[in-house]
Amino acid sequence: MRNLLFFCVVLTLFSFGKKEIGNTIKVNNQEELKSAVKNAVAGDEIILANGVWKDVQIKFYGKGTKDAPIVLRAETSGKVTIEGVSDLKIGGTYLEVRGLYFKNGYTPSNSVIDFRIDSKTIANNCKVLDCVIEDFTQLNRNKEDHWIEFWGRHNQLDHCSVTGKSNSGPTILVALKGNEHINNYHQITNNHFGPRPRKGGPHGETLQIGDSNTSMAPSYTNVANNLFERCDGEVEIISNKSNNNEYRNNIFYKCEGSLVLRHGNYCTIDGNIFIGDDNSEFMGGIRVINTGHLIINNYFYKIKGKEFRSALAVMNGVPKSPQNRYNQVTDAVVAYNTFVDCKTPWQFSVGANMDKSDVLPAQEIRSARPDRMIVANNIIFNHQGDEFPIKAYDKVDGVLFKNNFINSVNKSDVKSDGLKTQNLAMTKLSDWLYIPTVDQKELYAGFEFENIKKDVFSNSRAAANGTGAIVLPVDKSKGTINKKAYGAHWFSDEAVKETSKTIRVASENELTEALDKATSGTVIELKKGIYKIAASLTIDKKITIKSKDQKKRATVEYSGQANTPTFLMGAGGNLTLENIILKGEKNQHAFATKEKEMFSAYNLKVKNTEISDFDGVLNAYKDSFADTISIDNSVIKNCKRGLKLADENDDLGEYNAEFVYITNSKFENVQSNILDYYRGGYDESTIGGNLVFHNNTVANCGKEEKSGILIKTQGIVNVAISKNNFLNNPIKYIAVLWGEKNQQPKENTITNSGEFKTEQNLKQKMMY
Amino acid sequence: MRNLLFFCVVLTLFSFGKKEIGNTIKVNNQEELKSAVKNAVAGDEIILANGVWKDVQIKFYGKGTKDAPIVLRAETSGKVTIEGVSDLKIGGTYLEVRGLYFKNGYTPSNSVIDFRIDSKTIANNCKVLDCVIEDFTQLNRNKEDHWIEFWGRHNQLDHCSVTGKSNSGPTILVALKGNEHINNYHQITNNHFGPRPRKGGPHGETLQIGDSNTSMAPSYTNVANNLFERCDGEVEIISNKSNNNEYRNNIFYKCEGSLVLRHGNYCTIDGNIFIGDDNSEFMGGIRVINTGHLIINNYFYKIKGKEFRSALAVMNGVPKSPQNRYNQVTDAVVAYNTFVDCKTPWQFSVGANMDKSDVLPAQEIRSARPDRMIVANNIIFNHQGDEFPIKAYDKVDGVLFKNNFINSVNKSDVKSDGLKTQNLAMTKLSDWLYIPTVDQKELYAGFEFENIKKDVFSNSRAAANGTGAIVLPVDKSKGTINKKAYGAHWFSDEAVKETSKTIRVASENELTEALDKATSGTVIELKKGIYKIAASLTIDKKITIKSKDQKKRATVEYSGQANTPTFLMGAGGNLTLENIILKGEKNQHAFATKEKEMFSAYNLKVKNTEISDFDGVLNAYKDSFADTISIDNSVIKNCKRGLKLADENDDLGEYNAEFVYITNSKFENVQSNILDYYRGGYDESTIGGNLVFHNNTVANCGKEEKSGILIKTQGIVNVAISKNNFLNNPIKYIAVLWGEKNQQPKENTITNSGEFKTEQNLKQKMMY
Repeated sequence: MRNLLFFCVVLTLFSFGKKEIGNTIKVNNQEELKSAVKNAVAGDEIILANGVWKDVQIKFYGKGTKDAPIVLRAETSGKVTIEGVSDLKIGGTYLEVRGLYFKNGYTPSNSVIDFRIDSKTIANNCKVLDCVIEDFTQLNRNKEDHWIEFWGRHNQLDHCSVTGKSNSGPTILVALKGNEHINNYHQITNNHFGPRPRKGGPHGETLQIGDSNTSMAPSYTNVANNLFERCDGEVEIISNKSNNNEYRNNIFYKCEGSLVLRHGNYCTIDGNIFIGDDNSEFMGGIRVINTGHLIINNYFYKIKGKEFRSALAVMNGVPKSPQNRYNQVTDAVVAYNTFVDCKTPWQFSVGANMDKSDVLPAQEIRSARPDRMIVANNIIFNHQGDEFPIKAYDKVDGVLFKNNFINSVNKSDVKSDGLKTQNLAMTKLSDWLYIPTVDQKELYAGFEFENIKKDVFSNSRAAANGTGAIVLPVDKSKGTINKKAYGAHWFSDEAVKETSKTIRVASENELTEALDKATSGTVIELKKGIYKIAASLTIDKKITIKSKDQKKRATVEYSGQANTPTFLMGAGGNLTLENIILKGEKNQHAFATKEKEMFSAYNLKVKNTEISDFDGVLNAYKDSFADTISIDNSVIKNCKRGLKLADENDDLGEYNAEFVYITNSKFENVQSNILDYYRGGYDESTIGGNLVFHNNTVANCGKEEKSGILIKTQGIVNVAISKNNFLNNPIKYIAVLWGEKNQQPKENTITNSGEFKTEQNLKQKMMY
Repeated sequence: MRNLLFFCVVLTLFSFGKKEIGNTIKVNNQEELKSAVKNAVAGDEIILANGVWKDVQIKFYGKGTKDAPIVLRAETSGKVTIEGVSDLKIGGTYLEVRGLYFKNGYTPSNSVIDFRIDSKTIANNCKVLDCVIEDFTQLNRNKEDHWIEFWGRHNQLDHCSVTGKSNSGPTILVALKGNEHINNYHQITNNHFGPRPRKGGPHGETLQIGDSNTSMAPSYTNVANNLFERCDGEVEIISNKSNNNEYRNNIFYKCEGSLVLRHGNYCTIDGNIFIGDDNSEFMGGIRVINTGHLIINNYFYKIKGKEFRSALAVMNGVPKSPQNRYNQVTDAVVAYNTFVDCKTPWQFSVGANMDKSDVLPAQEIRSARPDRMIVANNIIFNHQGDEFPIKAYDKVDGVLFKNNFINSVNKSDVKSDGLKTQNLAMTKLSDWLYIPTVDQKELYAGFEFENIKKDVFSNSRAAANGTGAIVLPVDKSKGTINKKAYGAHWFSDEAVKETSKTIRVASENELTEALDKATSGTVIELKKGIYKIAASLTIDKKITIKSKDQKKRATVEYSGQANTPTFLMGAGGNLTLENIILKGEKNQHAFATKEKEMFSAYNLKVKNTEISDFDGVLNAYKDSFADTISIDNSVIKNCKRGLKLADENDDLGEYNAEFVYITNSKFENVQSNILDYYRGGYDESTIGGNLVFHNNTVANCGKEEKSGILIKTQGIVNVAISKNNFLNNPIKYIAVLWGEKNQQPKENTITNSGEFKTEQNLKQKMMY
């Protein structure tokens, strides 16, 4: 008989010292705080007085005990704001921080909250609870930091809200450099992460555990019960780069990225929910690289991503891969997951690029297929058939498919007996949650599958086991995301409703005055007439400037200095320009970004507007980033250049705009290119930008363009140029498209205007 | 209070079924055995009848339990011999094998004892105890096998003796390919491994755990209390290629290699003893690569190896190394070790080769220095000063030296405050064991050093801790290796004493008859006279053929077929030819190896002998291997070629002879080269062969040598050519030496004989 029952009777030989009630010390300023920290002993509680603490660098150290930690807390949670150039560093044992609110500032160091003070004073068994970091972002988006750095062991971030990081660097980094930091069993629990806006380049992860240099380390970090909401920073929401981490029961709500097992092995992804969107191909699921991962009990809804961003993306590896590239997938188990209304949810040998050996070095060629992988007991359910549930970019010969079920016909290249079409009934429990009507009980018993004891909702599988993530019965409440369960209890991310105020103006002075007074959401309506503007108008909030109707358009004449713009876009600026005639004097710009402090993205929307007589239409400086630029139904004429979004020229994968839409418009007599949109550097973590150039007329443009290209899109991943009319443009190429990314011109009319060229594989500068 | 004491009271709720005494089934042949295995249940014992079991492939399967294993054992341990083409495969749970003796044969499969039957029938919790595998080697040394393959989990090899593997492949392989085999906690305990003879190429490890493809796997194999004796197969006695393995309390007795942490991380090497030799630079200690290894409580005595083979060799890594090359050393801890009479025991950045970027690809350049490494609380003790205890091949900037002590002056490039010269007294306890007279108590308290609780002899450090591997008091018995504690209890490796019989002969017939009758060690004394030999004399044992004195030398005239040798060296042949005149008819060879079945090494010693009128002096075929070839005080003349040891031409690192000594001899009128000694393929696991060419005269040789080289030594690592006289040899080069290996001609006299050339870096074919 092998199974013994052990009853452990715990006796405590030495009686505990009677728990002392520590001192409570209220502090009002930095000096008092320093002194309080210096004198604190186990059990003490240091209370920061309510109010603004500006430009503080808090070092919280000491030796608490498990039963008597030293606590540093806000007098009232959320009422102590840490602002300005500030940070918090923690080093010692059993220290707890509660209730702080970081906002209106940024850190002067590498991190906002750091679980170490220096290499010798490291946190162990310390906690940060009920805190918020909001928009505490560096002034320059390319200045890198992390908002929370984990060092040491057994530290915890619990019930915190972390939102709005727009600069470079993972929001949270777990560092493993040194034996003191491995086997750390850190707890990242019950937090609310996001939104994290699109970054326009790499290094926009929300969580990174380890790095390629320490990817052999056992980390054992537990990431559980967190809500990741619209974490759109880059293609990796979470970048796992070490061993033995666990991701349990998290919700990924409409995040434009994936949970990526980038480096490291033997991780567990259990019981997570990935919710996508009908309209987005950017929201992904789990991307698998390396060895021994266990992916079970996960629920995927409307994940429509492809390749790197598919619901389950299993990559090809580089044979004998260098430490920082792609190891082969081996010994991975994908079992008991449910995929509802996803698009081609299973993609294998993603990243296979054997055809690119002439443009890439050998250590970039991913030809090692997944091996010794098991995919079993999963359910794919589609309300509308998905004929190709499996996509394979290479032979699938190392994957064992067993007892997977789909409710629609499978016409994939990979047709496995292990994926059977069957009539599966599902019941709708909420917008995103569908549960089986009956448990599907044909189960495959893989190696150690007996250890999979619970479903996605932590219900026991013992009584009534079934395929897929969900076993019956399911509590009705499970279909609702209870936001209050995540993040700081006192903090709400519900945006304050914008008051859509309208100010009517009839003169230059009124216009500038209105802009000064405007709050976010203000609409400034211009009466018909001429507005002579002599200095740039700064836009750093959400502003609409428009003539009331298209037939009575106001004219804005700009006479500012050379090389200045009419509208100067600042961080967070969001300008809609509608029904306006905008004129320059040839040597200024219609729009430009600030040259510095572009710490968050701007947006620019131009409608029914005529822009003429400028040097550049848009001049975006380095380190600036537009989320969306759209020009619709407008005319651009008699300018030297069009839109320049090409100043991120370090070839590090960064770029100046995520989405550029130019539609139903007319370009005439723009002397060089009409658009220069650039991303440089070979980097797969950026899958942008995006250009739609549709239904425009371009005439007599490009005559002074030295490159010979009218629409420059070097390195931009998604480019769609369709139904345009190109007429008498004396250039060589309308655009040079990237064949590998399936860029194809569609239904354009070309008259005396050069041609489209397609380069299959782009030569790019290696970044590492 | 953090430390609780747990008292676990184990209660058994369900009473055990009364332990049934299983059946005992004696079997006399394979059919009975098959049937017995088929019917065996937990608790059964199957007994193999004493005697020879020939050509058997035993499949031992079943389901035993912890308390009632199924046992397969010899009627009398050691009296059941498994011979011929045989193997044993084990698959199931709680199976035990005891007392078997594998000899006089080889396996038809990949392994002699395999802890799995096939990929589905794997052993778990199985044991092989008290068994012996002796000389069970493949007939061709290049045919690869393993003698013991571990698969599954929790299997054990205990008290076994494994000796004499001379073919390719690690003696023991722990396989990790698949989740069923990781976290295996195999026990390799109390065994006696070796001798394993020199192999002359790679793949001669005694133990390999994992491989580069599975090196990310956690293995947790425990290798404890074994005796490794003269395991000389190759430069790695043990090749660790996975994570979390432990090497505890083993003795490495005069093994020509090292315990190498080749791949994998976080291994523990604790309490091992490495015993070297005054006369060998081949015996090594521990070679460190990768991350997080803990090297404590080890005792090194007379380890005189350099570079790869130094007592502590810490390598440089390749930045972002490919999976099968060299990762940087990080987070390694070397503490509480003792080095007695070693030569430059600490070598750092071993393998640094930044100067070789023109002959090696980038992924071979080891420029990443050890980082975050701690070397503390160690003792270096020398009876005669060792002025350079530390050798560094690169900057040492990532190693923290703390509280290390040496009893002699340190003139190393690396002079660290952390290595202090101090008067350390040591007491001799045995030939190889020196213990401190008093504990040296200045200790550095590194991270988690408090967990180092015992010394090399498992004595507690609690009472009187000290630096070095040994704390006082030490039991006197510790200075003796009790061989009976290791390996099968019934087996002794003490060689049967050779009876050095002398047979005197006076005619050809008597000579061939004597050879037939000879046992190993026989001396055949030839009376003066002419012995006309028409067919090759086969030498497959230890034989001396000699004239009694040098002045009355017998003449052996060989008239065999073209291309046959006078003496045909077979596997294990060991010929000493002394005081003989040996003549051919121009188209035969003086010596040659067999073309097949050279499963173990031969030796050839020629003294005071004249060899003339042959095609080749020695013709060594592919797959043959000589341990030592020596020619001393002899004359070689009028031959077409000299010694050919160049048939291992696959460029896989193999070569045909380990040691070649040619001394005090004369070569005259050898028409092409006098020696062709070759090793091909870039491979660092072979650090041979070895040529000493000293005090010879070479005259009128090489005139028909097409390569223009008189002594060809391509790829041979150790080449010493000194005090020779080269006279009138019409060649271009006497030899082309390898500068990187410090090959330099010394004190040779060259007259009309070409010159020495030195190539610093050899271009070699990559093997992987």
